[in-house]
Parts: sequence; structure tokens; C-alpha cells
Amino acid sequence: MALVVQKFGGTSVGSIERIRNVAKRVAETYDAGNQLVVVVSAMSGETNKLVALAHEICEFPDSREYDVLVSSGEQVTVALLAMCLKSMGYKAKSYLGHQVPIITDSAFSKARIDRICDKKVRKDLDNGTIIIAAGFQGVDKEGNISTLGRGGSDTSAVALAAALKADVCDIYTDVYGVYTTDPNICSDARKIERISYDEMLELASLGAKVLQIRSVEFAKKYNVDVHVRSSFNDNPGTLVTKEDKEMESILVSGITYAKDETKIAVMRVPDKPGIAAKLLSPLSAANISVDMIVQNASEDGFTDFTFTVCKADFKKALMITKEAAGEINAGDILTDENISKISIVGLGMRSHAGVATKMFETLAAEGINIQMISTSEIKISVVIDAKYTELAVRVLHDAFGLAAKDVKAE
Amino acid sequence: MALVVQKFGGTSVGSIERIRNVAKRVAETYDAGNQLVVVVSAMSGETNKLVALAHEICEFPDSREYDVLVSSGEQVTVALLAMCLKSMGYKAKSYLGHQVPIITDSAFSKARIDRICDKKVRKDLDNGTIIIAAGFQGVDKEGNISTLGRGGSDTSAVALAAALKADVCDIYTDVYGVYTTDPNICSDARKIERISYDEMLELASLGAKVLQIRSVEFAKKYNVDVHVRSSFNDNPGTLVTKEDKEMESILVSGITYAKDETKIAVMRVPDKPGIAAKLLSPLSAANISVDMIVQNASEDGFTDFTFTVCKADFKKALMITKEAAGEINAGDILTDENISKISIVGLGMRSHAGVATKMFETLAAEGINIQMISTSEIKISVVIDAKYTELAVRVLHDAFGLAAKDVKAE
Repeated sequence: MALVVQKFGGTSVGSIERIRNVAKRVAETYDAGNQLVVVVSAMSGETNKLVALAHEICEFPDSREYDVLVSSGEQVTVALLAMCLKSMGYKAKSYLGHQVPIITDSAFSKARIDRICDKKVRKDLDNGTIIIAAGFQGVDKEGNISTLGRGGSDTSAVALAAALKADVCDIYTDVYGVYTTDPNICSDARKIERISYDEMLELASLGAKVLQIRSVEFAKKYNVDVHVRSSFNDNPGTLVTKEDKEMESILVSGITYAKDETKIAVMRVPDKPGIAAKLLSPLSAANISVDMIVQNASEDGFTDFTFTVCKADFKKALMITKEAAGEINAGDILTDENISKISIVGLGMRSHAGVATKMFETLAAEGINIQMISTSEIKISVVIDAKYTELAVRVLHDAFGLAAKDVKAE
Repeated sequence: MALVVQKFGGTSVGSIERIRNVAKRVAETYDAGNQLVVVVSAMSGETNKLVALAHEICEFPDSREYDVLVSSGEQVTVALLAMCLKSMGYKAKSYLGHQVPIITDSAFSKARIDRICDKKVRKDLDNGTIIIAAGFQGVDKEGNISTLGRGGSDTSAVALAAALKADVCDIYTDVYGVYTTDPNICSDARKIERISYDEMLELASLGAKVLQIRSVEFAKKYNVDVHVRSSFNDNPGTLVTKEDKEMESILVSGITYAKDETKIAVMRVPDKPGIAAKLLSPLSAANISVDMIVQNASEDGFTDFTFTVCKADFKKALMITKEAAGEINAGDILTDENISKISIVGLGMRSHAGVATKMFETLAAEGINIQMISTSEIKISVVIDAKYTELAVRVLHDAFGLAAKDVKAE
């Protein structure tokens, strides 16, 4: 008898009819002789409705109350799914975050899971009950309701799988798995069968919105096999798992792009120790995340300092940077809102030289200029003019042999 | 410094604009130097929406899950109201049933409050926080969410007032208070200034839908002064309080009617011990409540046995009664679905004779036939033909001098 955790997103439970379909799938898994924990999100659209109500009340709603409000969405779906299974004759029971309980810190709206008490759930599993757990929500040590941020239901599912030492954690979604790149851009993008946690982390944080980043961190930390798959069919999707020899032989696993960043360049910055901190610390104080940072080689005691922030923070970041640049007597500030970040990700980069060169050559051959570069052990990101985004993704996808036609048929 | 409990119903928090108005009223009470616990219902219409979802899933939704579902409505309003007060600069904090906690039994959908732990709330009150508590919901000993039945927010408010030994419990509603009878029938119906718990219990259970019955039982048990008043103005409403001499001097306090009952009469029932039980026990086994019961004086060893049940139970009750009547060899069964129950309520009946006579004479003078009679210490109910309902209420209202013109101007 296996212990299976299944997670269904908002689209999968977006209507009574779809909840019925989820119930059928859950029943099949149970009938096949498995113990089962099902994690569900709010019905699609519901969380947005609740958020809109909060913003009607005021521009910056109190974060504790915000979590009380938005967590009501999952409360509705767990109750409906449990009702549905019971009406089909199954033993089922809904669990809210505070009932499990899933203990988090008190960082409302972006809480992190501290620990999960599995005693009650385990007891119900052992008496044959199907557990329907609310995703996205937890409770802090003082009993306040907390939520885990957008996509938090993935993390709930993986965390429950870890706590219960589940055999597998199925994340049902509206895509067929994780792809080598966006199929909307590359029609020959290929579904990846197996991918390591680290690669998935890079892919997730770089724009492949399939799994919440924290869920992958959790999976890695507790060695949970996460199976990302379609809620519309029974085909295998992508298994996110610990790395092995075979994975390392693949140079590049996937290519991602992000169009939501903007570039700010401070010219003629006096090249002295502490300058970077003087420019960046006012930004972090304002809770603005800086993504890529490039400082050019110094000439005549001055350097150019360039960084990217997400579009939503651009105006505020520019204002802060102007002030900071004035204080250190820097020169002009140049900005570019039409940029795109293209990244290639692969474990094989660690042991194979020449991946970066191949990337740069491929882009150069298309006349695409590289504005910024940043690298990690298993990733290379470049900033280019946004208008070349699709072209860059396609030629790189080809160059690294990722297309479906390049590999054996599945 | 007084401790005030205020309860606002679904209509009062039915939109963001109305929630803002409630927040203003709450802020005024707080600014006047009071400690404050505010109990709110779900936004009007929301509970019905949730109930409809449940019934889309199945005809008889599981009651535990039903409570998880419908309690999400109050969760939304407490969060929004607390947000609103915080955005106005007040210290406010929402409390769900399980956070107070309000401990109930496990009779889901109609749970009864066992006890309230006031420690956390008291601590927050003492540091100047306005408590926004979800009405209608509680938690059982096992941590399951429970709800108190329709109108349960009244009971939540009174129970919190009792637990906290509040100075007053204000129930804000869409009427101006408790009236001597339905103002839609009697244009000169008068708002009652003070009424005893017992009278209010009779009025509530007889159709004056202002307060949930259990809230009055709670108020009586713990001696909580309940002030039923309008959420649209600041005028005093009706104070429900413990009885005093003055109240006893009033013969009749109010007149109610109920049109939702039907009559079933079993003719020629053998007049032997145990016959009533044989007719009624199958009904109670089927969970059907019998309201009035009349057994006529016996003639020649046979008697007629008549009772009323609510319209929703009529068909089922009739079927069961036919079977039971057959078993005891009774005669025909007569039914009447067009009946109405008129009741007069007043503490003064205890000490004053002649109230019943006056009631019967008044109805007789209008040619209204009385079909059944039942009495309690402070109430007389009669069943009449439904078509005379309004007429009966008006003539009795006049006869007992309840009209606004009969008493000193307020």
C-alpha cells in the first residue's frame, strides 16, 4: 500500500463539475489500494475576488487580516470535495491548515512552514480516510492564520508529502509537465521526463510557472519525488527528483525567459570600496529585490553600475537610485524597460566547458546583442532587447538539441 | 469603562460600503471609552450561495463538511471589518470561532455552545484592541468546525457577552426593535421598550424573527441584557432583560402568528392508555416535531386526536400517521393545510384571570372559529382558519390595548 499525495490547482477545482472529476480521480487512486492525501487550492478566480474585496477596503490591507480573508477560498473547496467523496460512499475528511496543523512563521502572506504535526492525519489515514487538506494556508504558533504566497498549495502538498514520508507527490496542473521551453514560443518544445531539484529551482525562479519555488526547495530538502502532471489525462508528466548520473550527461535541460524586468544603469560611479552597497542598500531597505547586477571594469577611477529590478518596482527603484547616485556624485542614469532575460539551465554545465561560448555564438549569429550576463553553477542568464525574446529562445532551443525531433520518441 | 458587545447581521455588512459604516459606528463606541467586542455575520446572500454550492454537490451534504463550508462566510466579514478599522488607525483583530475558542458540541449545523475561553480575548481587550469575532461558528472538542444554525450569530454575541460579563449586548438589525405585533399587519403596532426573557422566548419561537431563540435562552441563563436596535439610526430599540414588577402589570406584551403549520386529525381513536404514544412516537422517530396536540373528551370509548406539524413535514407526517392509525384501528384522517396559529404572550397572564376569555370573545365577535387551543403559563395559542390571520391579529391587538395610540407617546 502506497501513500500518495495529490495536489489539484484552482483550475482543476474551478467548478462543481470539475470538483466531481477530481473526486473521481481521487476515488480511483484510493480504490487502487493507496492511502491518500489530497491538497486543493481555491476555485480559480476566487482568490482574486477576495483580494479585490480587500483592496476595496483600503490600498494596503493589514497582512494578518488579509490571510484570514484569502484562506477562506481553500476552505470552500476542501469542504466541497470532501462532501462529494462522502456522497460517493468514501470516507473523507477535510483539514484546514490549523487543523492539521501546518505550523508556519508569522510572515503573513508569505509564511514559511516550520513543521507539520502528522499525528491526526496519520490516524485518519490508518482508518482508511481520504484526507482533503487545504493548500496555501497554515497557522502560526499563536494560532493566527497564515498563507504561503501565490502557488503556496504546491508547497503545502510537498510539505505534507515530506512530513508523512509519502511515496510520491503528484502535482496536477493544466500543463502536461515541465517543458524544455515555453511551447507557445517553440512548437517543438519537449516535455522533460526527469529533472533534478536544482535545475527545477532555476527553471521555476526563471519563469516556468509550473511549481512554486519553495515547494522545490522543500522537495529537495526532504527528498520528495514530485510528479508534475496533467489533470486532464493519465499520461506521465515530469518527475522532479534527486540528480543522478544520467541527468549530468545532459548539457542543457531547459531554456526560460522573463520579460518582467527593467534595467537601471548608473554611469561614471566613483570606483571606491562601499559604492555598490551605497547604491543597493536603499533599495533593499525599500524591500525591492535586485536581480542581476553587473559592474564594468573600471577606467580612470570610474565604473558603470547596472542592475535589473522587476517592472512593478521600477518607478520606486529609479527614484531611490537617483537620490543615492546624487549622494555619491555619480553620472547619468540610463534605463531600459524593454529588456528580456534568457536563461539556459542544465546540470551538465558543471562538467562541460563551452556551454557559455555556444550560447553567445548562437545569439551573435542572429545579430542579437548581449547587454548583461550572469551565471551560476548550472545556469547562464543574458539580458537582451525584448524584441528578440522569441527568436533567442528558438535558436538556443535548436542549438542545444532540445527539440522533440532531436531525441527518441517518448 | 464599559465592555460592550455589538452584533451586526448580514444586511449590515452586506457590502464594502456598509462594512465601512459599521466600522464608523464601532469606532464611535470605542472612542466613547468602551472596550468592544464586535460579532458579525456573513455578507447577506453569501451563506445562501455557499449552501447552494453544497446542494449542487449532493442533496444531503455531509454535516461536518457543510459547517466547514458555510463558516467561510463569516471569515470573510471579520477580516474585512478588522482591515477597515486598522486602516482607520484603530487596533483591531479578527477572531474565528476556533481562535476564541468558542467550544460547542459536535451537533454540526445546529451546535450548542458548551463554553467560551475568554483568556485570549480578554488579554487583547485589555491592551485596547477591538475584537472582531465571527458569529455563527464554533469548534468542537476534537477541533472540528461547527455552526450554530440560522441566526446563530445572535447566540454568539450573547454567549460572548455572558463569558466576558459585558455590560450590554447590542444586537443591530434591520428593524427598530421588537414590536407588539407584525407592523406589516397592524400599522399601529408599537415598539416594546422592555421585555422579559420568557416573553421574548415565546415571541421568538412563535414567529417574531428578530432574535434566535437560543440567544434568548443564553441571555436568560446568564442574565445578559440584550438590546435589539436598528443599525440605521441611534434610537433605542427593545431591551430584553430579566423580569420586574412593572412588566408583570402588563397583561399582554405581544401578539404573533404563524402560517407554516398544518393540522392532522385522527378520528375515532380507541380511548385506551398508550394510544397517544402509538400515534406520536413514529413521528418523533422520523424526526418530525409535533407542535400543538389536542385530544377531545372521550365519548363511547373513542376520541379524536388532533395535532399540528410544520408544512415542510406535512406529507411525510401524513403517511406515517395513516400507517399508525391503521395499526390501532382508528377511523378517518382529516387534514387542513390552511390554518394559522395566533398567540398572545404576556407575563401578566400569570396573575390575571380572564385573559383567555377576552381572547376567545374577541375572536368570536368577528365570527372567527377556534379549532385548537394550547396554553402555557405566559402564552395562549389558538388555531384558526388561515384567511382570518390578519383580522385576528388586528382585533386582538386592539382588544388588549397594544396600539401606539393606547399608550403614552415615546
